[in-house]
Order: sequence, then C-alpha cells, then structure tokens
Amino acid sequence: MADGRSIVVFHPTSYRDSRPIGERFRDGDVVLCDLSWLEPDEAHRLVDFVAGLVFGLGGNIDKVTTHVLVLAPPGVTVLDDAEHLTGSFYNQS
Amino acid sequence: MADGRSIVVFHPTSYRDSRPIGERFRDGDVVLCDLSWLEPDEAHRLVDFVAGLVFGLGGNIDKVTTHVLVLAPPGVTVLDDAEHLTGSFYNQS
Repeated sequence: MADGRSIVVFHPTSYRDSRPIGERFRDGDVVLCDLSWLEPDEAHRLVDFVAGLVFGLGGNIDKVTTHVLVLAPPGVTVLDDAEHLTGSFYNQS
Repeated sequence: MADGRSIVVFHPTSYRDSRPIGERFRDGDVVLCDLSWLEPDEAHRLVDFVAGLVFGLGGNIDKVTTHVLVLAPPGVTVLDDAEHLTGSFYNQS
C-alpha cells in the first residue's frame, strides 16, 4: 500500500502467537489470521484476544470463513456482503 | 487505507462472481476470496481466473487456507511465513 502498510498472514499454532499478531496490528498492518492449526480452546482464546486488540485500537474484524479472520487497522474499510452467512463476529459462541 | 484502498471480501457461489472480483482488484482494492461456497470445478476455474488477473496486473496472491486467497494489488506487500504448509500457489493441482 502506498502508505507503507503490509498484509501479514499468520498461521498460529498456539495462543502464544497472539503476541506477534498484536505487534503487527499495532504497527498498522492488515493482519490475516488462519485459525485452522489451533486446537479449539486456543482458537477461542485467540479470537477473544483479537477482539480486544481490534476494539481497543478502533479497527475492524471480519470473519472470512470459520477459520480465517481479517483484522483491519483504523481507517481501513472492509466490505463484505456475506448475506448468506448468518450471525455476527461478536455473537459467536 | 490512507490512499483510499478497501479490503473487499467475496464469497463467490459461482464462476460468474469472477467479474466483480476482477473489477475490484483492477480498481486497486485488496480482495479476499472465500472459495468454500463453490463446487470444486467452479473453484478451480475461479482460481485460474484469479491467477491470470493477478499475474497480468503484477500483483500478488497468497493462499491463507485451502479455501481463502488474498489478492494484493501491485505495490502491496504480503508476508506469510507458512513454513509448515507445503507447496506453492502456482503448483496446486
């Protein structure tokens, strides 16, 4: 992107990977999280971490599939007309 | 993004959805493709279309998971250290 942002794709294998994810997002990069390599309990922890991370910084999260989230920094628009998918990110159990 | 780009997420249900995907990418947006709603033969067609689209415009494709591709316009860096995933995008059968 002209303003120096990158798109950084993570394939976390444990909750510990939340740290580099947080650092990249805090630095202003777009982050893609592939959750498919995590055990369910660690995936849920990471999703909650990411929800807090993004909320605090005023960014946006979008669920691309069950296993992939896009984290957009503040000011980056995310468009998704997923009308055939039900539920919202914040309501998932 | 400060330069006006958006991130646009598509959940194509047929090969016909290649057109809006192509238009957004051509316009300079980052495109995320969720292939999980496509029959295998249509998914393969869309993947080949996207390969041509991105190659022609000098952008980058990264496979986030089996079902999710990120299409980055020229000049947008994509970082992915997916060392535990094997194969490259262009070698998939």
